Amino acid sequence: MAKESEIISSLRRKTRPVDDVIVGIGDDAAVIKHRGATDLLACCDVSVEGVHFQMDWTTPKLLGRKSLAVTLSDVAAMGGVPRFALVSLALPQTSQERLAEEIMQGIFELADDSGVTVIGGDTSGSRDSLFIDTSVIGECAKGQAITRGQAKADDLIFVTGSLGASALGLLLLEQGYRWAEAVDGNSSPPHLQEAAKDALAAMRQQAMKKHLIPEPRLLFGKAIGELGLATAMIDVSDGLSTDLAHILEESNCGATLRAELLPIANCVRKLSRVMPEINLLNLALHSGEEYELLFTAPGDNQRAIVEVAAAINLPVIAIGRITRGRQSHLERGGKVELMLPSGYEHTI
Amino acid sequence: MAKESEIISSLRRKTRPVDDVIVGIGDDAAVIKHRGATDLLACCDVSVEGVHFQMDWTTPKLLGRKSLAVTLSDVAAMGGVPRFALVSLALPQTSQERLAEEIMQGIFELADDSGVTVIGGDTSGSRDSLFIDTSVIGECAKGQAITRGQAKADDLIFVTGSLGASALGLLLLEQGYRWAEAVDGNSSPPHLQEAAKDALAAMRQQAMKKHLIPEPRLLFGKAIGELGLATAMIDVSDGLSTDLAHILEESNCGATLRAELLPIANCVRKLSRVMPEINLLNLALHSGEEYELLFTAPGDNQRAIVEVAAAINLPVIAIGRITRGRQSHLERGGKVELMLPSGYEHTI
Repeated sequence: MAKESEIISSLRRKTRPVDDVIVGIGDDAAVIKHRGATDLLACCDVSVEGVHFQMDWTTPKLLGRKSLAVTLSDVAAMGGVPRFALVSLALPQTSQERLAEEIMQGIFELADDSGVTVIGGDTSGSRDSLFIDTSVIGECAKGQAITRGQAKADDLIFVTGSLGASALGLLLLEQGYRWAEAVDGNSSPPHLQEAAKDALAAMRQQAMKKHLIPEPRLLFGKAIGELGLATAMIDVSDGLSTDLAHILEESNCGATLRAELLPIANCVRKLSRVMPEINLLNLALHSGEEYELLFTAPGDNQRAIVEVAAAINLPVIAIGRITRGRQSHLERGGKVELMLPSGYEHTI
Repeated sequence: MAKESEIISSLRRKTRPVDDVIVGIGDDAAVIKHRGATDLLACCDVSVEGVHFQMDWTTPKLLGRKSLAVTLSDVAAMGGVPRFALVSLALPQTSQERLAEEIMQGIFELADDSGVTVIGGDTSGSRDSLFIDTSVIGECAKGQAITRGQAKADDLIFVTGSLGASALGLLLLEQGYRWAEAVDGNSSPPHLQEAAKDALAAMRQQAMKKHLIPEPRLLFGKAIGELGLATAMIDVSDGLSTDLAHILEESNCGATLRAELLPIANCVRKLSRVMPEINLLNLALHSGEEYELLFTAPGDNQRAIVEVAAAINLPVIAIGRITRGRQSHLERGGKVELMLPSGYEHTI
């Protein structure tokens, strides 16, 4: 395994100088210039081998990318802009020399694409599992952070993108399917060789891609934050029903969702024709790790929200309404039923 | 194991409101007011079971405390003041219900004592090892952060406190000794029951305490930073010889240390009489996880440095001098020998 000092030297060479980073990787702490014109945002997310991922599902680079993506998504969900990242890695003793470097490559690529500077980190050995913890510092206009706590009765409930693909991708990975680009060409199983010809195989690839390479909704979150369009916002990490419940609890209100409006991912719909185990509604309501943004806003803001989304080519749809009570309901085929949060938490 | 939501609720109840924390634990990200009058410092440290610690060496509370202490020490080594912390925990499936709570209790206690607010975190399961990553955001006067890179030829080299006890404490733990307060009364081995009567047992306790409950030199680091007394500073985490080498490399200079000036911990001296395996000089030069501050300063600042240290009752001593070359030397009994860094890195 590479020594920490070698990893640090390698990282320092990759870091481009950024104006407001006075001291980056390689000292006891990073030093950041901050003009004080914004509020700071800070959050972290830990990914653990055997809990959040299996090594043979993905590549080290994509693993690094996702470990940062999920934390950037938290900043997007505050309506902010991510600026700096710290990365802690604990690498199994048996790791190949290049594991840390490849993980960091994935982190650096997404950081670069997102305007984020990796300013520091720590590496360690580990007896067995790989651990990656990413902490992100971001910013937003003073007093403009969008929490989970300000949803109001009669607000509309919106969600970006589509739902269900991430949980389905996870199911496919568990069933032994692999994302094509994570498998080296010579050992591609037959279902991959057929991918181009087979529409279902392509749909499976889409679902696994959504799980392995989630795209945090940074541009949209930033725009919604800057324009002050949302009353409450969260990213869909535990599943729509659970993440909505977080908003309702913090905002002390209820909600009614309309089942037929839930934006079910195309690949999920298509695969459901051949996978009887798929329940479309359950997947849409409870699929975690989607990293779409779920937010509430007065109806008056709907037009502006739709325009922002159209400008960056991101689907957004109103799926329900905030209510005065404390319960959540689902309206489905003219009937209204009680809805309980059923997302998952990462305990094994 | 407790669910993440329960852990978060419990933590939120414990967090006191702090003026500049607009949103603390429990949202997607914490929101911090920052006036922009200071530079920000950011760093993280990861602690992994089986690499940095064994569960039967310590208590969960002390483990939590140390995991934050080591990161606070990094801020002290920049001459700054720690302000906010993020904590990521990955807890083995087999953990007792209260493990996370006890770890967080240790973290909260040290945070409170240090004026630090825990603003967020993440928890996860883990297949096997316990993993704790703490990220700290601190601040220092604009442009006043003390890096490793500004040591100058003829600067004096200073170190706080004493050296050697942490590595000896680790050795004792590995030999089966236990820190008294980490062992429950009924199962105390005989050497603990005799602790009060036995001066050597008390020395062993001191060494283990230094290893298990390091005290980051926050007041001293802050004062040195505010008064601009040091040219370069680092905390002794890898061992004096290695950490000094980091300063020399970044500052592009050499050093000569005087062996007889190295402040060897009292417990180390006393135990060396009965432990033939102890080499005092090696321990002083290479003992890691001491979390003392090692820094360089012009001779003109020596009086002010000594006064600052005296005011907070912390020993500080000049142990050598920065030189123009790139090599490190040790002066010992009138002879000068080459000194190579021989601290350790946390790979297993």
